[in-house]
Amino acid sequence: MAKEITSRVNDYSQWYNDLVIKAGLADHSSVRGCMVIKPYGYAIWEKMQAALDKMFKDTGHVNAYFPLLIPKSFLSKEASHIDGFAKECAVVTHYRLINDPNGKGVIVDPEAKLEEELIIRPTSETIIWNTYKNWIQSYRDLPLLINQWANVVRWEMRTRLFLRTAEFLWQEGHTAHSTDKEAIEETERMLNVYAEFTEKFMALPVLKGKKSANERFAGAIDTYCIEAMMQDGQALQAGTSHFLGQNFAKAFDVKFLNKEGKQEFVYATSWGVSTRLIGALIMAHSDDEGLVLPPMLAPLQVVIVPIGKADDIAKIFEKFEPLIKELKAKNISVKFDDDDSKRPGFKFAEYELKGVPVRLAMGMRDYEAGTIEVTRRDTKEKSVQQFEGIGNYIEKLLEDIQANIFNRAKTFRDSHIREVNTWEEFQKAIEEPGFISAHWDGTPETEEKIKELTKATIRCIPLDNPQQDGKCVFSGNASKERVVFARAY
Amino acid sequence: MAKEITSRVNDYSQWYNDLVIKAGLADHSSVRGCMVIKPYGYAIWEKMQAALDKMFKDTGHVNAYFPLLIPKSFLSKEASHIDGFAKECAVVTHYRLINDPNGKGVIVDPEAKLEEELIIRPTSETIIWNTYKNWIQSYRDLPLLINQWANVVRWEMRTRLFLRTAEFLWQEGHTAHSTDKEAIEETERMLNVYAEFTEKFMALPVLKGKKSANERFAGAIDTYCIEAMMQDGQALQAGTSHFLGQNFAKAFDVKFLNKEGKQEFVYATSWGVSTRLIGALIMAHSDDEGLVLPPMLAPLQVVIVPIGKADDIAKIFEKFEPLIKELKAKNISVKFDDDDSKRPGFKFAEYELKGVPVRLAMGMRDYEAGTIEVTRRDTKEKSVQQFEGIGNYIEKLLEDIQANIFNRAKTFRDSHIREVNTWEEFQKAIEEPGFISAHWDGTPETEEKIKELTKATIRCIPLDNPQQDGKCVFSGNASKERVVFARAY
Repeated sequence: MAKEITSRVNDYSQWYNDLVIKAGLADHSSVRGCMVIKPYGYAIWEKMQAALDKMFKDTGHVNAYFPLLIPKSFLSKEASHIDGFAKECAVVTHYRLINDPNGKGVIVDPEAKLEEELIIRPTSETIIWNTYKNWIQSYRDLPLLINQWANVVRWEMRTRLFLRTAEFLWQEGHTAHSTDKEAIEETERMLNVYAEFTEKFMALPVLKGKKSANERFAGAIDTYCIEAMMQDGQALQAGTSHFLGQNFAKAFDVKFLNKEGKQEFVYATSWGVSTRLIGALIMAHSDDEGLVLPPMLAPLQVVIVPIGKADDIAKIFEKFEPLIKELKAKNISVKFDDDDSKRPGFKFAEYELKGVPVRLAMGMRDYEAGTIEVTRRDTKEKSVQQFEGIGNYIEKLLEDIQANIFNRAKTFRDSHIREVNTWEEFQKAIEEPGFISAHWDGTPETEEKIKELTKATIRCIPLDNPQQDGKCVFSGNASKERVVFARAY
Repeated sequence: MAKEITSRVNDYSQWYNDLVIKAGLADHSSVRGCMVIKPYGYAIWEKMQAALDKMFKDTGHVNAYFPLLIPKSFLSKEASHIDGFAKECAVVTHYRLINDPNGKGVIVDPEAKLEEELIIRPTSETIIWNTYKNWIQSYRDLPLLINQWANVVRWEMRTRLFLRTAEFLWQEGHTAHSTDKEAIEETERMLNVYAEFTEKFMALPVLKGKKSANERFAGAIDTYCIEAMMQDGQALQAGTSHFLGQNFAKAFDVKFLNKEGKQEFVYATSWGVSTRLIGALIMAHSDDEGLVLPPMLAPLQVVIVPIGKADDIAKIFEKFEPLIKELKAKNISVKFDDDDSKRPGFKFAEYELKGVPVRLAMGMRDYEAGTIEVTRRDTKEKSVQQFEGIGNYIEKLLEDIQANIFNRAKTFRDSHIREVNTWEEFQKAIEEPGFISAHWDGTPETEEKIKELTKATIRCIPLDNPQQDGKCVFSGNASKERVVFARAY
C-alpha cells in the first residue's frame, strides 16, 4: 500500500498522526498550532454537529451567535477565569495595515492602535454574561437556554491535530437559571446528553464524573466530565459541563427579580464539546490499516467496488442500481466506485484507510452466481452473501458494526480499570495501559504530588461512586471513595 | 402596542434598526461594530444555511475549515488583494496576558510578541491558496470544489446591524480548476445558485450582472453579483461570485501538471454570501407592524392563539391536537400559544412583529361553529374558514404567501427601474427611489464622477443586457449597452 501507516505497537503517537494525515482528515497549516480540517474530517464534524444540535434542541435549547472578540477588561472580571486563560490569549491590538514607508510590503499602522485590546475568545462566558445582563430582568426571562457553534483560540504551546490546536471548533452552551437546583439539573442533563452522544453515535463508552478542584474549569463551582479510554489506555476528556453558580452573574452584575419580588443573582451553567472528539473517535477505534468509523458518523457507509472490464462493470452497475436506490431510501450513504484508473486492490486499501464500514465487491463470477462479497471494516471479515435481499442485510450489518465497535471499546475499557490499594501497586499499575481506581484523601496537595511523580491526574470522581471507607493510596489518610487516575491526552 | 416601531415613511433607516432590535433578531454588543445574533435572528440564518448548504452539495461541493488567522505576509502576496483589505484588518500581535505589575488587572505581556503579526481573516483566499499548493499536483486533483462556513472580520468604520458589521458570518466557496473556461462556468453556476436561493427562499428578485472594474473584488478578474432592491429603492448587493483567473495561483505558486504533461497555473473562483442577507430580507419585505418573513425562512410558520378561559383553552387544544400533528407531518412548524399571562391582542401584535406568516385564532364561538379565524401576515387579511380540512388550506396558504411576497417585491422592483437618457433626467431620477438604467462610456473616470456627484454607483452590468448603441448619460461618449445605477447599502 502506498500510504504506509506506522503500527500502533511501534509508535502509538506516530500512528495517530499518520492516520489523520493519510486518511485526509486534517493538515497542519502555515499558522502555528492551527489546523486545516479537510473535507473528509469536516464531514465527520458535520455529522457530529447534526446529532448534537438535534439533542440540544430536543432539550429546549436554541442557537445564537456572540462576538469573536472580547474586551480585555471583560476577561478579567471573574478572577479565577482570567487566571485560567491569561496565558493562552491571542490579542488584537491594531485594526489597520499600511504600506511600509521603506517599501517592504505592508506593516501594522501604528496610528491604528485600539484603545483597549481585544482577546479572541478562548471561551465565551464573559462576553455572553455581559450580554445576558441586558436580557434578564425577571424570573419570567429565565431559564435562558442558549448554545453557540463557534471557533475559539487558545494559544497552546504543544499542539496535536484535533486533540489540542490553537484554534478549534466547538459548541458552547450558556444557560441562566433562577435557582441553583435548576442550574445543577441542567449541568447534569447536558453531561448526560454528551454521554449519550458519545456512546450512541461515537460508539465510545465514557465514565461520567466530577473533576477534582484542581481540574475544574476556571470560574466553575463544579465541573462534570465524561472520560474515555483510548487504545493505549490513556484517558481523553471528551466533554465537560460546568455548574458556575453565581460567579459570572456577580462578575457582570446580572440580577433578576424573583417571584418574591427580590433582586437575586442569576445561576449559570456552561458546557462544551469540540473537534477534539474527532481525535477521540480515531484513537478509540482505528487500527493499523486505517480508520474504523462507527457507521452513524461515517461520511460514507457503503462502498461498492465492481471488478472486471468496462462491459462487465456496466452490467454490474445495472444490477446495483435498484440496491443503491434502496439504500439511499434507508438513509444509507453509498458510492459505486467505477473509477477505472485504480485497481480493485488499491481501492480496497483506500477504503480501509478511510474507514468505510461496509465494502461490497462483485466480479462476473458473483454476478452470474447471484452472490456478492461483503467485507466489514471493523473485523475485516469477508463473506459471500446472496445478492437477493442484500439491502436489508446491509442495514442490519451497519447496526451490528455500530454495536460491535462500542462493545469492543467497552470490553477493552472495562478490562483496563485496575483497583489498587497501595502506592507500590499504583506505581506499577500506572506504567501499564489503563485507568486506576484508588482511594484519595481529597487534598490538592496529594493530587499534585501524584501528578508530579507519575504524570497521572485524577480524571474524575465517578458519579455513581459507591461510598466506602479506605485509605489514600499515597498519604494513607482516610478516604470515603475511590477516584479514577490516568495519564491523559 | 408596547414596542413602537418608527414608520418607514418617517425614517426608513430608524424603522430598520427598530425592527431588528424589537423583533429580537440582533443586538449591538459591547465590542465596537460587532453584533450579537439573537436566537430568532440566528434561526433565520440556520434556515438559510440549510438551504444553501444543500444547493452547494447538490452542485458537487464539500465543506472544509481553514484557519481564522492569516500571516500578514500571505495577505500581501496578491497586490490588489492587500490594497483592498489592508485598511480594515484586525491584527493579532501578542499571545499572552500577564498580571499588571502595578496591580491593575491584566496587561498584554510584552514578552509574548509574535514574530509575524497575524490577521483575522477578512476573507480566506490567501490562506486557502497557500494550502491548495500542497493539495494540487496534477489535473487529476482538479477541480477542487470546497466551501467554508465561517466568521470573518473587516474593521468597518460605520456599521449597521446585519448590513455592515465588523464581524459577520458567511460562507466562502473556493474552487480550483484546470481551465479558465471551467472556472468561469463555476463562477456563473454559483451566481445562479445564489439567484435561485434569493428568489426561491428569500422571495427576493435579483438582477444578475457583472461589476464594473471599480467595484470588483480585490484580486478578481471579474466579479459577478446579484443586486436586490430594498423598499426605499436603494440597492443591496446580496451575493458575489468571482472569477479570479490565475491571480492567486501565481501569488502562491500553485501549478498543476496538465494532460499534456506541462506545468500550468491553476484557475480559481471564490463566492460568498453572508448574514447581510438577513438585513436584505428585512428591508425588502417588512412593514410598519414588523417583520414579514417568507414562509420558507420563517423560524415559526404557524401560530395558534386560543381565546377564552382555561377550560375553553383546554377544549380548544384538544381540537387542535390532530391539526398540530398533521402540520408537523407536513414539515410545517407550529406553536400553540396558551400562555395565560398575555392577552390575545398582545399576542397578535407580537406575532405580527415577529413576522409569523399564518396566525390562527379560535374562541368558543368558532369552536361551536366549527370555524377558525385565519390571518395572513403578508396582506394582514383575516378570514373565517371551516376548521375541517384546514391543514391543507394552511399548506396552500403558505405557498400563496411565499409567492405573493415575491411577486410584490418583483412588481415594486420592476416599476422602479427607470431608463434615462440625459444627465438632467439622471439627476432627477436619482432623487427618486429606484434603479436607473443608463448608457455609460465604460470608463472608471465617468463612474467615479457620477458617484461623486450623485452617490450613485454602478450596481451591475446585467448579464442578459441587450446590446444597443447609445451615448453615455454623463460624458456623451459612445456606449454599447445600458448599465444599472443606484444608491446602495
